[in-house]
This record gives sequence, structure tokens and C-alpha cells, in this order.
Amino acid sequence: MKLSGVMPPITTPFQDGNLALDKLRKNFQKWNKTGLSGYLVLGSNGEAVYLNEKEKMRMLEVSRESIPKSKIMMVGTGMESTQGTIRFTNQAARMGADCALVVTPSYFKGSMKPQILYDHLIAVAEASQIGILIYNVPQFTGINLEAEWVAKLSEHPNIVGIKDSSGNIGQLSDIIHFSNKEFSVFVGSAPVFFPALCVGAVGGILAVAQVVPQACVNILNLFKKGKMDEARTLQSRMTPLAKGVTTKYGIGGLKMAMDLVGYFGGHPRLPLKRPGKEVEEELKELFMRLKES
Amino acid sequence: MKLSGVMPPITTPFQDGNLALDKLRKNFQKWNKTGLSGYLVLGSNGEAVYLNEKEKMRMLEVSRESIPKSKIMMVGTGMESTQGTIRFTNQAARMGADCALVVTPSYFKGSMKPQILYDHLIAVAEASQIGILIYNVPQFTGINLEAEWVAKLSEHPNIVGIKDSSGNIGQLSDIIHFSNKEFSVFVGSAPVFFPALCVGAVGGILAVAQVVPQACVNILNLFKKGKMDEARTLQSRMTPLAKGVTTKYGIGGLKMAMDLVGYFGGHPRLPLKRPGKEVEEELKELFMRLKES
Amino acid sequence: MKLSGVMPPITTPFQDGNLALDKLRKNFQKWNKTGLSGYLVLGSNGEAVYLNEKEKMRMLEVSRESIPKSKIMMVGTGMESTQGTIRFTNQAARMGADCALVVTPSYFKGSMKPQILYDHLIAVAEASQIGILIYNVPQFTGINLEAEWVAKLSEHPNIVGIKDSSGNIGQLSDIIHFSNKEFSVFVGSAPVFFPALCVGAVGGILAVAQVVPQACVNILNLFKKGKMDEARTLQSRMTPLAKGVTTKYGIGGLKMAMDLVGYFGGHPRLPLKRPGKEVEEELKELFMRLKES
Amino acid sequence: MKLSGVMPPITTPFQDGNLALDKLRKNFQKWNKTGLSGYLVLGSNGEAVYLNEKEKMRMLEVSRESIPKSKIMMVGTGMESTQGTIRFTNQAARMGADCALVVTPSYFKGSMKPQILYDHLIAVAEASQIGILIYNVPQFTGINLEAEWVAKLSEHPNIVGIKDSSGNIGQLSDIIHFSNKEFSVFVGSAPVFFPALCVGAVGGILAVAQVVPQACVNILNLFKKGKMDEARTLQSRMTPLAKGVTTKYGIGGLKMAMDLVGYFGGHPRLPLKRPGKEVEEELKELFMRLKES
Repeated sequence: MKLSGVMPPITTPFQDGNLALDKLRKNFQKWNKTGLSGYLVLGSNGEAVYLNEKEKMRMLEVSRESIPKSKIMMVGTGMESTQGTIRFTNQAARMGADCALVVTPSYFKGSMKPQILYDHLIAVAEASQIGILIYNVPQFTGINLEAEWVAKLSEHPNIVGIKDSSGNIGQLSDIIHFSNKEFSVFVGSAPVFFPALCVGAVGGILAVAQVVPQACVNILNLFKKGKMDEARTLQSRMTPLAKGVTTKYGIGGLKMAMDLVGYFGGHPRLPLKRPGKEVEEELKELFMRLKES
Repeated sequence: MKLSGVMPPITTPFQDGNLALDKLRKNFQKWNKTGLSGYLVLGSNGEAVYLNEKEKMRMLEVSRESIPKSKIMMVGTGMESTQGTIRFTNQAARMGADCALVVTPSYFKGSMKPQILYDHLIAVAEASQIGILIYNVPQFTGINLEAEWVAKLSEHPNIVGIKDSSGNIGQLSDIIHFSNKEFSVFVGSAPVFFPALCVGAVGGILAVAQVVPQACVNILNLFKKGKMDEARTLQSRMTPLAKGVTTKYGIGGLKMAMDLVGYFGGHPRLPLKRPGKEVEEELKELFMRLKES
Repeated sequence: MKLSGVMPPITTPFQDGNLALDKLRKNFQKWNKTGLSGYLVLGSNGEAVYLNEKEKMRMLEVSRESIPKSKIMMVGTGMESTQGTIRFTNQAARMGADCALVVTPSYFKGSMKPQILYDHLIAVAEASQIGILIYNVPQFTGINLEAEWVAKLSEHPNIVGIKDSSGNIGQLSDIIHFSNKEFSVFVGSAPVFFPALCVGAVGGILAVAQVVPQACVNILNLFKKGKMDEARTLQSRMTPLAKGVTTKYGIGGLKMAMDLVGYFGGHPRLPLKRPGKEVEEELKELFMRLKES
Repeated sequence: MKLSGVMPPITTPFQDGNLALDKLRKNFQKWNKTGLSGYLVLGSNGEAVYLNEKEKMRMLEVSRESIPKSKIMMVGTGMESTQGTIRFTNQAARMGADCALVVTPSYFKGSMKPQILYDHLIAVAEASQIGILIYNVPQFTGINLEAEWVAKLSEHPNIVGIKDSSGNIGQLSDIIHFSNKEFSVFVGSAPVFFPALCVGAVGGILAVAQVVPQACVNILNLFKKGKMDEARTLQSRMTPLAKGVTTKYGIGGLKMAMDLVGYFGGHPRLPLKRPGKEVEEELKELFMRLKES
């Protein structure tokens, strides 16, 4: 199975500071009716760095129950240490994950040379019971894994893809061109979803896809049908919303947007905050702009 | 006239440290037979920062004589001061330039706020006898002019386009989406020429286009005919060469590549140097790879 | 009690991948005989991000047993979430820590605005049973907390100091000048220990101090006696070693250096590695250079 | 003669867009009565990048007439090309300059490797009739020349010093420690003037010194007398003003500050601007704060 399509990195719902798993189930019920090909659980937008181990297990349980077998269940399992990453990846495998997304370790930036990252990812791939995807996200990690190293890693049979959130389309082109043909390249930055498809990406793992799943899926479908102008236009109308729920207002903004369109968003954990009323108005306007055509 | 197509930022030929204008004429004779839509004279790759005023005038004279009226003569005229830029832009106009490329001033980085750059470009546009294009090249200037400011500038009737060399396709999409429809958006980074066309760029001002003009023009033509896969493949084969003659080996590498394919390249001015023999071998291999299909 | 003096951020010893607590006890026995004023346990150099909760508890237990009451026991307790940080800070307090070092959260860089960091640190200070110090370390977090915000935080009675590892002496001067006079400013970058003292720092929390504690203490003592030239000279002789065991060879290099001078260093956890033999030779030479005078 | 002391990089006065040389003469008359050891003419703060060749010559003429032989006349002569730099350096020599400050070329950032910069500076030193100082100013050039390369350059008999404006005191310490003992190391960043003296700098080339020359000279004198606390306190009181007239409000702010204390400042050339009235109030307050003790 080669992975593809549109997948949201789902948020983790909280009420009174605790996991709100019934809210998660309801979100899944709605998402499952859309054209999304799967879900990323415990990704950055899932506030994985704010969850303790027990909470992570509960998120996996409920997600596994809620995700139909026809859709992909990808889990963010990257830790700073190699042994911690292997342990949690196999835990996710036992909980039923289809594949794991492994972020490049980054705390000791100066020491995370390409060869160190390569060895780490190969060690995880060797030990993992499920296929792994590399997660390259320089805006969070301060580290960029260059195309030539991704290409080398793509030759390992258990490294099945990458989510590249750099937003760098030249780099994405190089990754696609130089990597193994079985390797699934996802873009992780919604404002460049359409150009990423143009250079050969198989899909996108996009925060905004949990708010407007159908718009994202439509861009992909229009592209597949060769309707380039329509795809590009839809992309341009979606971009301001995509920026609003990520770089501009962060997870607090994303959760607010979810609430505005009938999903449960709620509050992020501190130190993150939900933005104020004025942002709600701005987000409403961005939804409007997307609908107009 | 809306500008478009593939244009090289031509190098300035030197022999024994002096301008070699007969070599320039011969280069033009060869380029004129290709599908290039025009030329950028005195751009970054023209080592404009290494030329004195008299030398610049001579370059303009010989270029004007050599460029047929059917092709665009664009001239790099940006100086650090507003008055210097205006003066030289109108000098270029008098020498027969069709339009001027004005780089964002950058020496006093901390003071070059968007409003300051906006006022500068508007002042130049107001005073210029020919249309101007904005030149955004963060890798040289350390300054990036964001899409919303470009969009505002695009409303001025004498600001007719932009060369964006950031390599940031998301930004290029935004520029195209938000700018005036008469505004010509060129990409200035060859490795993302194809994705730039996908998001709506009208052409490219590409260093590698003076070495392999036809390959660049072919990407554009394939794209226009809707042959996306072929365009993308040709782009991927050209990208390593494009990087070799810019980011990797700089103007010295570009001039060496010119010599390898029958143009006159020669040496750049010091402190720039021509790379050694081992780079010549590498460049030859990159040419080979481009030819294979 | 105003904190001051030279303190090492101690490494965590491993054997066969597990905590080697007897080795830790022996290291403490040696360190306790020097002029060090205290220790930072579970700091960055303690590989805290590679330890699970049980391992952290064990490190605190053994450290508490080994550190005499006359010396400071500071513990790194910063987590990404506010609630996680509060919980672990008070756990450290119950285990006998004298004070806690709280790193700025950093995973969601784009959202970590100064006000968010301020609110986080105030919330931790309010809830903590022991005094806290701010840990500003841009090279790991990608975030810098500016002097004006540190000054505001210094007014809180339970925020007792800062470890600033930016290496920026201008910033350190401003922090000292604008902060509350009871606030203890430590420098966290050994190559600027002497100039930090000149601008008013009360001490240093320095990785190299666990390898050559006496040299670091001597710089402080020479400075206090007004022997500026001698202090500066000793600093210059120590700087190459300080760089070798931090920026240049990371924690692997630091542990190797410890082994060379009679402490237990051992291996860091993967993905970090111990450097090869050639680095051992280089480190030996750096020790030599420090001894010569 | 080993260079030392406090020197301002003087501004270039304009009236109605033209050089106002009588104003320059009057500024010199006032400055000459202070403890300044010399002047930097045509530095960054002299808006050298906004002057044409004739204007530069006039600035040199009038400066030479106005600067007594007992004070140093240093001239900024760095151009992007090696031949341009040599030509202008020797022109400055013929106009009576005592030494030249040569900025690292920077337009082609990617190509300006340390070896290229080294070769450039050696070539200039070889050809120059006067001693040259290296000008390292990453905030303008985007390039930092590291201490080990400066140390190598310091061995050339005609490379007599450096102005390091990086603000990095660790780097300054290394430069001083590893360079030839005859080599004069000036700091170019006023907020770290005092710590720079502590690590061994011979003086400062400081924008704020043309506004409050005596305060700067006093810091140096207090330091020389071993009055560390007083020197540090004066530094801390001067720092906010120093930032106001450089990083915060740029050359426009510097010129405004000059007007406030009886020098002629006037307007910078466009695109730079003079800040508004509210900045004038802020600057007045900063002068007040400096005077209080």
C-alpha cells in the first residue's frame, strides 16, 4: 500500500484541562464522512508535547476505535532519544497504528548532524513493527533534513514516506525526484498544497484539513482531473484560512476555527491560549472568502 | 505590453580585467537565435557591483546594439539611494532600455522597513521614464519584501512587474493572487521554474538560461501545452545544473559553464574566482545528465 | 540567600544504556572537594530530554544524598506545558531541591511570544514551593527572552535568578542593570565567563566546570581580588577547552573529557554519540594548553 | 603607532540634498576640543553608500583640513571589488588619510567564503600605501569573519587592526587573544564598549561618540584607572542612548540626536528618513538619563 491523499493532523480535545474523548469520537464521526484518506494522531497539532504517557495511550485507543479500516491511522511517535522513539513506535503499532511519523530529534541542535539523524531514523526503522515516515518540520525543530539524505533514507524498506513541512517546493521537488519510487511524499504546509501536487507529492498532511476537509480534497481531485486553473484558484482562496489556523494564530486559532464550523475545538493547554473575540471575527471572514467563488 | 518568457541575467565578459565587448556581441548573436524573450543587463550576475559608471554605460551601449527590438532589454538600475536609483534608471532609459529592474536597497538592513522600501520604489516609479520591476532577492540583500507590500506596489501604473528570487513558491502564489492582473511576475530561481509556472508566473529570469536557453524555453513551452509530466521531468533534469551555476559555484561557475558550451564566459572580477578543474568535470557531467532522456 | 558562584550542569552517567548511579556518587565525591558552589541536576547537559520520569526521580534522590547542605542543589524542571512544569517543579522541591531552573517552552516557536512566556513563568513561580530561575538558551530553544521581559519577571519574589546562555554580553549587561537587585544573574556560556563577571554576573553555570572546576573557580576568585589581567588570561586559556566540550563536540565530547581527567563520563544516549579517538587527542591537547602558563 | 582610543564614525551633513561642508567644519571644531583620539570618515554612518565619487573626495578634503595631525584620520574605503577597493584606498592615502577601514565585500554572500575574504584583504593590504583595518559588521553585510581568520590576517604588517561590530564579546576575546600583539582591536558596538575594554580592546569606534564624546572617553578613562564599578555604571547609563541612535532609529535618529546637543545633524538621504517628533522626545529623555548620576 502506497500512502496518499489528504490527512489532518488532528487536535487533542480538552475540557477542564482533561482529555475530552467523547468530543474526539464526535469529531471523527464527522470527518469519517468526508474524502479524507486518513488521520495523523499525536502530531504537533495534537499537542503531543503537552500529553503524558497515559493520555497518549487513551488518544490512541479512542482513535483506533473511531478510524475505519479503510482510512489510514498514522501516529506521531518521535521522541528525542532513539530508544524512546523505538519503544513508543512499537507501542503505537500494538495499539493498531498503520504507520508512524517520526520527527527529527532537535533539542541538541548543534549535534544533530545529517549522519546522526540518518542513523537515528535507520535504527527506528529497523526496530519498528510498522512503516515509518520522516517528519521534517524546520519551523518547530530548527533543523532541516536535506533532499540527498531523505533520498538515502527512502531506500530503506521500512521508511515509507515523509511529511515535509518546510514549505520549500524546490526541496520537495528534489526529494520526489531523487527518492525511491515507492516512497510517499506528503507536503505538510497547506499554502503550497497545489504546487506540491504539481511537482509530484502524493498528498498533504494539513492542519486546515480538519476544518475544511472537503476544500482540501477538492484541490487534490481537481488536480488529478487536470483542472489546473480551478485547483490553483481554490488553493488561493483557501490559503489565507490555512495561514490563520497555523502560523498566524497557532493551535488556539485552529481550535477556534473548528468550533466555528461544528467540530469540537476547545482550548489548548497552557502556555498556549485561545485567541480573543477579534480573531473569531477574522476567522469567520476567512471562511466566507473560501466559500465565495 | 505585458512582459513574459525566459530571460537570462547576462554575465559581463572580461579579458585582462577589462570589458571584452566583442565577446559580449558574440554571445548575443548566439542567444538571439534561441527562444529567449529578452535579457537582463547589469543584474547581479552581470557583476554590476564591480563595474564603474563608464563600464556600465559601455555595457548598455553594446547591449542595445545587440538586442533586436523584438526582444526585451531590461536593465538592473537599483542603487542604495533613491536619487542614485532615479538618476541611473533614467540614464538607462535614454540608452534605450525597455524597462528597469530595481533591487530593494539593503545596506542599512535594520532601517529598511517595508514602508521605507515602498516609498523608495514609488518614488523611483514616479520619476522613471520607463516601467520598473521590483527585484526581491533575500539571499543577496538579507531583505524580503512580503506579498502584501508587492500587491500594493503593483497598483502603481509604472511598476510593471517583479523578479522574485526568494525561491519561496508560497510567497510567489500570494504575489500573483493579490497583485494587479497587469503585473508581470517572474521567478528568479531556476530550480523552481516549473512550480512557479504552475502557480501563475509569466516567466523566469534565470542565470542558467544563458547556458542552456533552449531547455528553459522548452519547460515553458511544455507547460503551456499542458504537458505537465514532461515539463516536470525536464525541470528535474535541469535543476542540478541550475544549482551548479548559481548557489554552488557562483558567477565563476556560471562563466565556466558558458565556456563549456560555446559562449564566452571567462573570469569574474576579484574577489570572485573561477573554480578549479575538478568543477569543470562536475559541470560537464551535469550537462550530460540534462541531455539524457 | 542570594545564589552565586560556579556550578556545573552535571551529566547523567550511563552504563549499558542504564543509569550508573554509583558513578554519579563518585563524581560528586570529587566535585564536593572543589570550590564549586553547587550543582545543576537534570539540565540540558544532563540529557534530561532522554530520561523517563523514573530515571529523573532516581537522579534527584542520589543527587540529594550526595550534595552537602552547604552547596546549592538546582534542578532543571522545565517542561513544554505549564501544568507539567508546575508538577515536576514541586516534585523536585519534595525531593529536596533548593531551587529550580525553568527553560522557556519552545516547541511551538511561533506562538511563544514574550507575553506567553511571561505568563508561563509567573504561573510556575506562583505555584512553586521553591524559588525558580529562568533558563534562556536560544541555541537549543530557538527563542530569546529579552532583557526588558527578564527585568519584569525579576520583580516576582519567587523568581530568584536567570541562567542566560545566549553568550550575548550586551544582553547580560542589560539584564543585570534593569533587574531587581536581589535577582541572581548567572552566565551559562563559559567562553564569556570573565566578561560576564565584569558586567556584574554573580557566577556561572558552566558545562566545563565539571571537568576543570578549579580553573573556573579561579577565574571568579581572581576577578573578585581585582586581578583582571590574570583572570582574563586564565579565561583565554580555558576558552578552547570550553568550546571543545560544548559547541564543538557536544555532550559526547564533554563525557569524553570527564573520563580523561578522572571523572566518569561514559557514553551519551543515542542519537548522541561519543566522538572518535582523534577527538580524544585534541581534548588532551586542550587540557595541556590550559595547564601551561 | 598603535591605534587606540575613542573615535566616532562621523555622519555626512546634507542641506537641500547636497553636502553641507561648512556644517562639517563646525562639527569638527567642537569634536576637536574633546578627548576623541580620531575620526572615521566615510564609514557606514557616513552614508558612504549614498555618495558619489566626487562627494567622497570633497568629504576627504574637508576632513583632512579639519582634523589636526594629533588625531587619527581613518577612512572607510571598502568596495565590493578588489580593484575598486585598492584604487579608492590609495586615493584616500593621497588625500592624507592615516589608515583605511576595509569592510568585507558582501553582495555575493554565498561566494564570500573565508579564504576569498582573506585573499581580498591581503591583496588590498599589499597594494595599499597606508595601513588597513578590517571592518567586520555582520548586521550590515550578513557575513562574519571568524577569529581564526582575523588572527591570520593580523600577521600581515600592513593590516594594523580591526573594527568588530558584531557585538559578540566572546569573538572579540578570541580575536584579541589569537592576533598579533601589534594588532589594534576596536569594538564597533557602543553597548558593549566597557566589556570590550575588559577583554582587551584598545578602543571603540562608536556612533554615539559623535553625540556624547566625553561620556565615551570617560568610560575608557575610568577603565584605565581601574575604576570598574564606575565605568560599568556609566556604560549602563549610556547604553539606551547608544541603542537609540543606532539599531533603534538608525542614522536618522543619530542625526536628530546631534541636532539636540548642538552639532549639525540634519536629514539622511532617502530612502533613509529622519524620525518624527515623538522620537525627539524619547531621545531627550535618553540624554537626561545619561546625565543623572
